[in-house]
Amino acid sequence: MTVFVGCDLGGTNIKAGLVDMDQMKVLHAKSAETLSHKGHDDVMRRMGTLITEVIEESGIDRGRIKGVGVSAPGVLDLEKGHTLFLPNLYGQWRDVPLGPTLSKYLNLPVSMLNDVRAITLGEYTFGAGKGVESMACYAIGTGIGGGVVVNGQLVLGIGGTAGELGHMTIDINGPRCGCGNYGCMEAFASAPAIASMGVKAVQQGLTTKIADLAEQDLNKITPELIAQAANMGDEIANEIWRNAGSYIGTGVSNVIVTFGPKRIVISGGVAAAGDLLLEPIRETIKKRVFIVPLEEIEVVTGALGNEAGIMGMATWASLQL
Amino acid sequence: MTVFVGCDLGGTNIKAGLVDMDQMKVLHAKSAETLSHKGHDDVMRRMGTLITEVIEESGIDRGRIKGVGVSAPGVLDLEKGHTLFLPNLYGQWRDVPLGPTLSKYLNLPVSMLNDVRAITLGEYTFGAGKGVESMACYAIGTGIGGGVVVNGQLVLGIGGTAGELGHMTIDINGPRCGCGNYGCMEAFASAPAIASMGVKAVQQGLTTKIADLAEQDLNKITPELIAQAANMGDEIANEIWRNAGSYIGTGVSNVIVTFGPKRIVISGGVAAAGDLLLEPIRETIKKRVFIVPLEEIEVVTGALGNEAGIMGMATWASLQL
Repeated sequence: MTVFVGCDLGGTNIKAGLVDMDQMKVLHAKSAETLSHKGHDDVMRRMGTLITEVIEESGIDRGRIKGVGVSAPGVLDLEKGHTLFLPNLYGQWRDVPLGPTLSKYLNLPVSMLNDVRAITLGEYTFGAGKGVESMACYAIGTGIGGGVVVNGQLVLGIGGTAGELGHMTIDINGPRCGCGNYGCMEAFASAPAIASMGVKAVQQGLTTKIADLAEQDLNKITPELIAQAANMGDEIANEIWRNAGSYIGTGVSNVIVTFGPKRIVISGGVAAAGDLLLEPIRETIKKRVFIVPLEEIEVVTGALGNEAGIMGMATWASLQL
Repeated sequence: MTVFVGCDLGGTNIKAGLVDMDQMKVLHAKSAETLSHKGHDDVMRRMGTLITEVIEESGIDRGRIKGVGVSAPGVLDLEKGHTLFLPNLYGQWRDVPLGPTLSKYLNLPVSMLNDVRAITLGEYTFGAGKGVESMACYAIGTGIGGGVVVNGQLVLGIGGTAGELGHMTIDINGPRCGCGNYGCMEAFASAPAIASMGVKAVQQGLTTKIADLAEQDLNKITPELIAQAANMGDEIANEIWRNAGSYIGTGVSNVIVTFGPKRIVISGGVAAAGDLLLEPIRETIKKRVFIVPLEEIEVVTGALGNEAGIMGMATWASLQL
């Protein structure tokens, strides 16, 4: 049994899990709050404690554990294992030696990777990307992250920044994005952008079940709620998903003409909408891509859910040895 | 001395050249008219004759020649060496056995590749892409083609269709493109699109040297002529190049967030504009890309000019052995 630890540092929670690489499954996992306002030393200490607890609670001989992979939501120095810029955490995470600190604490090799690249690698190795040599993965939630596999290898680009597929410009005259650019796919089709389409419909007084489901409270309008309305046959809600799929499908079309991935994996909270989102993505690709044989390309949802990142980081750690 | 033949089947001309792979240079090359209206059997016969002539005229021992690479402008079946769709040639080129026919005629192994992927491979191996592990190449002329190198390998995608970088949507509401899509970069910044910006300026009666240089004849307005006007200080002409660079730079930004190439190579006739085009591309990238460290990315013009395709196809042939 070859076991690696996958750990994800998120803005809200830290997750850690033991992954059996032969059985391709998570043996034991747990999470803790990030509490990043307490500072990075405190966060790193609790990450070390959490990983130690996961190992001890699993009952697995510590000698079987070969390494630890740690993902973080931002820009990292992969070689040094330092964080460079983590916009979703409080305080300065500029050049924090997260990898070396945990490695010393745990007495295990630690390797790092951006969180969405970890999801991509997890889905590619164990999930929706299995069996193809090239893949693009989108994680659609508060933002839109992504990752790219070409010729069987996760593409890192410069410092692991390849795969920022949410920041493709799909409208040269489009709205401001959180990244500083204008017209990014993320500005059109992230969870908040989809929710805002529902808010607007209600504000406009359009006839839609979204208002009732949200009990007339704009704060309660989420992609999940809009999907619920759409599944009840609400035309406005269905149109919102068609629009979201058209935006995402345009970005996916751009990825297809660039490197021709055979599998497009849509993960993250918004992927729960299923065919409400996937069908308009597929239709958009057919309208926009003419040179690539589309019958060889599948658009699917992620298969690993919340475990994708942990499994991806265990895989990443195993690839570094 | 290891010698391969590179051959390019174009809409107007066929080119063939002998490439010394050790010295990295074209030893001898010549071209002939394509005359595709005479049918594919005739075209293939003349390709065979042209390649035979190049070999004989060079005086190089035929035994030294290890293989032939043939590029064509369209979609190919790379495994069979058949053409599938060549939109710039007359008649049906659907499933024409170009590779096997030439191989039999020449008694040499023949491998095939799309023409712009050939330019990409040539520039990567011998030209502007030397020394980096990832690169994107644009060939900007009548259309905009491209190619992509990741981790030192030309990315083929499905049937060699990866790298169609001119067909990225940069404006979801944009104008019709020749490919059938709307809002492609090619629809904004190909040579005809750039020329049409000059035509429009003259038609509008704007004060610009373009009109005089073209002797008031709209048919004479080309990117070269607009570059000439811009280099004379003409403000309208400079603005046209800034616009073209902004469109191309948006597409390049999308490629950068996707896989982070360290070198962006701009080739094709339009690249002759040099910094008139490259500077606004660089400025646009700075405005649009925030997550990738741009100081590690260079935007340069191609180094091999018209020889890029021949050198790329010789390289491709050598990689197939």
